[in-house]
Amino acid sequence: MAVVLDHHLYGKSAVRLTKLTRHADRHDLKELRVDVRLHGDFATSYTEGDNSKLVATDTMKNIAYAVARQHPLTDIEGYGLALADQFLRHYAHVSAATILLSERGWERLTSGGAPHPHTFVGAGSARRVARIKRTRTAAGVRAGIRRLPLLKTTDSAFSGFIRDRFTTLKDTDDRIFATTLSADWFYASDEVNWGECFDLVRRTLLNVFAVHHSLSAQQTLYAMGEAALGACTDISRIRLAMPNQHRLLVNLAPFGLDNPSEVFVPTAEPFGMISATLRRI
Amino acid sequence: MAVVLDHHLYGKSAVRLTKLTRHADRHDLKELRVDVRLHGDFATSYTEGDNSKLVATDTMKNIAYAVARQHPLTDIEGYGLALADQFLRHYAHVSAATILLSERGWERLTSGGAPHPHTFVGAGSARRVARIKRTRTAAGVRAGIRRLPLLKTTDSAFSGFIRDRFTTLKDTDDRIFATTLSADWFYASDEVNWGECFDLVRRTLLNVFAVHHSLSAQQTLYAMGEAALGACTDISRIRLAMPNQHRLLVNLAPFGLDNPSEVFVPTAEPFGMISATLRRI
Amino acid sequence: MAVVLDHHLYGKSAVRLTKLTRHADRHDLKELRVDVRLHGDFATSYTEGDNSKLVATDTMKNIAYAVARQHPLTDIEGYGLALADQFLRHYAHVSAATILLSERGWERLTSGGAPHPHTFVGAGSARRVARIKRTRTAAGVRAGIRRLPLLKTTDSAFSGFIRDRFTTLKDTDDRIFATTLSADWFYASDEVNWGECFDLVRRTLLNVFAVHHSLSAQQTLYAMGEAALGACTDISRIRLAMPNQHRLLVNLAPFGLDNPSEVFVPTAEPFGMISATLRRI
Amino acid sequence: MAVVLDHHLYGKSAVRLTKLTRHADRHDLKELRVDVRLHGDFATSYTEGDNSKLVATDTMKNIAYAVARQHPLTDIEGYGLALADQFLRHYAHVSAATILLSERGWERLTSGGAPHPHTFVGAGSARRVARIKRTRTAAGVRAGIRRLPLLKTTDSAFSGFIRDRFTTLKDTDDRIFATTLSADWFYASDEVNWGECFDLVRRTLLNVFAVHHSLSAQQTLYAMGEAALGACTDISRIRLAMPNQHRLLVNLAPFGLDNPSEVFVPTAEPFGMISATLRRI
Repeated sequence: MAVVLDHHLYGKSAVRLTKLTRHADRHDLKELRVDVRLHGDFATSYTEGDNSKLVATDTMKNIAYAVARQHPLTDIEGYGLALADQFLRHYAHVSAATILLSERGWERLTSGGAPHPHTFVGAGSARRVARIKRTRTAAGVRAGIRRLPLLKTTDSAFSGFIRDRFTTLKDTDDRIFATTLSADWFYASDEVNWGECFDLVRRTLLNVFAVHHSLSAQQTLYAMGEAALGACTDISRIRLAMPNQHRLLVNLAPFGLDNPSEVFVPTAEPFGMISATLRRI
Repeated sequence: MAVVLDHHLYGKSAVRLTKLTRHADRHDLKELRVDVRLHGDFATSYTEGDNSKLVATDTMKNIAYAVARQHPLTDIEGYGLALADQFLRHYAHVSAATILLSERGWERLTSGGAPHPHTFVGAGSARRVARIKRTRTAAGVRAGIRRLPLLKTTDSAFSGFIRDRFTTLKDTDDRIFATTLSADWFYASDEVNWGECFDLVRRTLLNVFAVHHSLSAQQTLYAMGEAALGACTDISRIRLAMPNQHRLLVNLAPFGLDNPSEVFVPTAEPFGMISATLRRI
Repeated sequence: MAVVLDHHLYGKSAVRLTKLTRHADRHDLKELRVDVRLHGDFATSYTEGDNSKLVATDTMKNIAYAVARQHPLTDIEGYGLALADQFLRHYAHVSAATILLSERGWERLTSGGAPHPHTFVGAGSARRVARIKRTRTAAGVRAGIRRLPLLKTTDSAFSGFIRDRFTTLKDTDDRIFATTLSADWFYASDEVNWGECFDLVRRTLLNVFAVHHSLSAQQTLYAMGEAALGACTDISRIRLAMPNQHRLLVNLAPFGLDNPSEVFVPTAEPFGMISATLRRI
Repeated sequence: MAVVLDHHLYGKSAVRLTKLTRHADRHDLKELRVDVRLHGDFATSYTEGDNSKLVATDTMKNIAYAVARQHPLTDIEGYGLALADQFLRHYAHVSAATILLSERGWERLTSGGAPHPHTFVGAGSARRVARIKRTRTAAGVRAGIRRLPLLKTTDSAFSGFIRDRFTTLKDTDDRIFATTLSADWFYASDEVNWGECFDLVRRTLLNVFAVHHSLSAQQTLYAMGEAALGACTDISRIRLAMPNQHRLLVNLAPFGLDNPSEVFVPTAEPFGMISATLRRI
């Protein structure tokens, strides 16, 4: 039997990092998780136990911290590009580096009506994420949002879908639309005002979700993606994934009560999963 | 061998509930998890398989939804009291009902500079909680906060602790203090402005955490609890639990770099756990 | 306003520990999580920022590792007792120590029909746990099981419960009974063959769950507890908590199919929660 | 601005299913999670809010249960193929269906030395998984294992890797090798004895992990994959992902104790991630 190594990839995952920047009047705080993956001439470590070309994953972790010291870390995208660059410059046999970044949100506390100089409150489960893929000739930057809960209580319908012998769902012209947004967008360049563009895309996605008269989750998703591409010209492509997290109207009739769309069961499972990628022509 | 039933307790857990209130100009939204526990004359269901006095836990769930339809659900405390009351009025052999409530936070979206009438963004992992314990003669209300991440980047020291042969921790006069606050407070009455008091206690705890010159997590916790008791006279007792979630300074010296308290590893485990209960004399 | 410190408690949580014992013919492996809580004269650390009596939680972690080196760690109960003892002997102002232990299960791999000398497979999500509470005069040992999934497909009924205007659940004489068992039992002594007793209690609980003709979760729980007290005379009391994790029969009639108790939806929420403590008279 | 819909995909996720098969002498039990994704002519639902071609995700759930009633469900692969087939036969505009399956393990209880006819114990966190991708002309079957914890206490070294100014890891010729295995293999056919092949691959992977004299995680992973391809000729390709979950030797020297590779800290983060795909030539 002949066997061949097809793909291989290794690195360090879940490198946790806090970067504190001490300004005269305030401290800035970033907390992130970094995953490093190196691509290159590592095949003999798999096939022959030859470790001579292996960068220990522990060393990758050290480099992540060293670069964090030297980089301002204003935006995760910039740090990720610098980190990928460091791997390529330092190791000639590495052909490409992929850096995954996930930033935990901390909001500055408002105390006595003013922003506090050094105290922060956790901003929730949503994460700002980025993926950098850097080769010797090019750098690709993808940014995104993960796990952002959104809910609108009206302006959402779902009717006119296929009705056959397996269909029990009723048409509705007014339902709760709840989701947990994940979005990833691809930049056409690696020189972008990362923070400004992130804020713009995020704000646009949320605003369209709010004002869209939804005929389906699919239609709202498309409108959100289209608006994001319109808002930030640095973006070439955007992928959205929106679970449809159902709120089921409770039947209170057995208890002699009506339920004019007031009391619902929020169900975790099962859920619809709607996803699409939109790109600029 | 003689065996006796010592304690017994049963009920329905994780009843998820969405309550939508439709005002002319806006919708209000509450989402919560309810756990019901009934105490009473249920012993023979355990010892003899006699189900004749059992309220099915499915029935408890139905009652939770029915009461949610009839109650404004402005605050979880009020709803919990009404729900406990319903169990006691409806079932003569129930001696007490405990209701646990956990509210998921949804913040109204700001869209175009104004609060949106029907769109909400998930407010994070923190939960507003309450526990109602109602007997035939009295009702006790405990309210609280769970899992609220807080972090201050300075004004926190830890030194002068016991130093012996098992001690390797160094004294520090400036460290990051990160925690995930849990607080529970007990009301002296069951007629309180629940929402106002909750906001006041929450704001007070956060503000003291921010401004306190901390000599230890213990001291800061005490100052927070003392201030909360001072802020809201309806509270008789408060319990605080604050994990000390360490940020460890990374040693960059092997890589020829200094680290003037800028780059840290946030560690999930192990963590210190500091807790105390304070009460009014 | 006068405020007083009512209770206080602190310690180190989530100290993870692997203990490897190298026998001539095989290796033994234990992995556990340890939580330490110290009780004693620490009030002024809260009220005055006086750290002079504080044992740093980092020091507690060091002691947990040092004792693990010196103790055979055959059973978590024995190690917990030794660790609590170390705290009391070493620190005169500590009045009591509580040690929580949770052991991750690793099963020796069977390879080529024989137990492998040094390879292990993860044994699932269930945990063997213990809690040691040691004062200057006494030691209490509680042992237990957490998160052990159990399911029987028949021999479980539920009928004859209260039927009123809030009841929609139907009587059943044959349902799936699924639960995730948690059990805690209290030893009458601190000199017990811990491992043997644990195995006996565990086996007894599972066997009774299997063979019991269940009229309710309450009745089965009681039978399990009664049998456990009968099986191990070192136990004075046992507490069982058994969520009723429903399997709901799917209605296939709309699709022209019957469903003779074959296809169910396993639901995570809501769930019934049945609990009781039994003791020897 | 011109925008185009690039990819789109939707379906139902987390359809939970229990299938009970009632034999004369015993009951068999399967519990699984099913995710359905349909590919096809759904573009106008995104771009125009035209729902006329949409299969409601609720309908997909209904079909999953109906097919589960009619299929023996001996193996998840067979059920997934039947389910995908049902979607293609029933909906002419669906071009392909992807079915993801994840089976929860239940082991039959041994009670009184014999297998119990209807009682089961949860088999742990590992999952048997499969992915079916069926078009109008072909069906691809991928099977696998997720989250299977493995640990060997010796026969694992790591040395001779790149040593530069960022390297602090020491060479070792004897370390603990702990991982949580994920494996996915691709069948060359859609008519395979699924259960037999799954057991063979699983057993082979575990056995090689145990007996391999490991010079690196990479080398062991390769040996495992090579043996799996050798063991089951129906497999054309296998992908393995093995996090390196470090056990760090505790330095007990400050406490006057040696530590001859006996006491370790099992760390959850960060971890190495080693992955590769092997295929038959």
